[in-house]
Amino acid sequence: MRHVISALVMNEPGVLANVAGMFAARGFNIDSLVVGRTEDPKLSRMTIVVVGDDNTLDQVRKQLAKLVPVISVRDYKQAAYIERDLALITVGVGPHQRGEVIEVVGLFRGKVVDIAPESLIIELAGTEEKVEAFIELMKPYGIRELARTGIISMARGVQPTKEVVVESSSKRTRSINAPATVGLPPS
Amino acid sequence: MRHVISALVMNEPGVLANVAGMFAARGFNIDSLVVGRTEDPKLSRMTIVVVGDDNTLDQVRKQLAKLVPVISVRDYKQAAYIERDLALITVGVGPHQRGEVIEVVGLFRGKVVDIAPESLIIELAGTEEKVEAFIELMKPYGIRELARTGIISMARGVQPTKEVVVESSSKRTRSINAPATVGLPPS
Repeated sequence: MRHVISALVMNEPGVLANVAGMFAARGFNIDSLVVGRTEDPKLSRMTIVVVGDDNTLDQVRKQLAKLVPVISVRDYKQAAYIERDLALITVGVGPHQRGEVIEVVGLFRGKVVDIAPESLIIELAGTEEKVEAFIELMKPYGIRELARTGIISMARGVQPTKEVVVESSSKRTRSINAPATVGLPPS
Repeated sequence: MRHVISALVMNEPGVLANVAGMFAARGFNIDSLVVGRTEDPKLSRMTIVVVGDDNTLDQVRKQLAKLVPVISVRDYKQAAYIERDLALITVGVGPHQRGEVIEVVGLFRGKVVDIAPESLIIELAGTEEKVEAFIELMKPYGIRELARTGIISMARGVQPTKEVVVESSSKRTRSINAPATVGLPPS
């Protein structure tokens, strides 16, 4: 089963190295890992897609909790959330098939961001499933190059998320009103 | 000066940990680091935005070259390329100001992907500069939560990129036709 885990971490040098090292050492099957900026310059949000059973997930959560710079961990397994992956795809099409490709791009609400005599660069944002489906459709035309960001996620506004505040191994007290819960309506 | 470096790496466990550890140990000022899938399941593409002078860049390139699983490194400093960052932004607006926000989203070619009585979730893909400009415009409305992927990049089709094939410290021979050059027109 696929789980999307979102962790709020301190924006300190070495945090990514710590987390990546922990995953590598434990041999977890990580599908994607994104670390990006948040509304607070002191914090980064790490979004991890992990494939495994509930036991694996528990292990991941416990290991994350052991890292001091991790503030809170949210598991989107059951909650209503938005997920988005971004892809840039260079497709090798010339003038004859360009129209066909542009039609598919439009249906997927993607954008053509560069055009050359024998290729197009397409930008597509969507769920992982949507991006995969689009890539499948482009394969017959010839994918020359592909770059993807991996998934970022956000809880929907109406339904509250189950927030798991990390009981860190450090002695710092952590409030249930950790920054990750900002913006979520009271449950 | 800001440099966008794109490295093709082996998709092996521990590569991210190695690269992140190297950057942390050297204290490089990394603006963002994204590792994502490519057209070849055996390879991942790592996009690193680093701020520094040419000397810093040279150091980064040399350090990357020392890591065996790195296949090739491309520096977009001077080449024509596309860069894209993806953001999900929860803005705290109710019915009265919703229209104003939706207007700005339209001008930036973003999308509203969730709506709640007192908030909207907006998806926006664009250059780092465009995403920053949009965030600035949203600040007065109240940003409740923000997640960003960091940058991915791709060479434009018409102008050839200066590809730097890594002379790795390993003894493996590396062809100038490394996978990263696929799809680039001959210079």
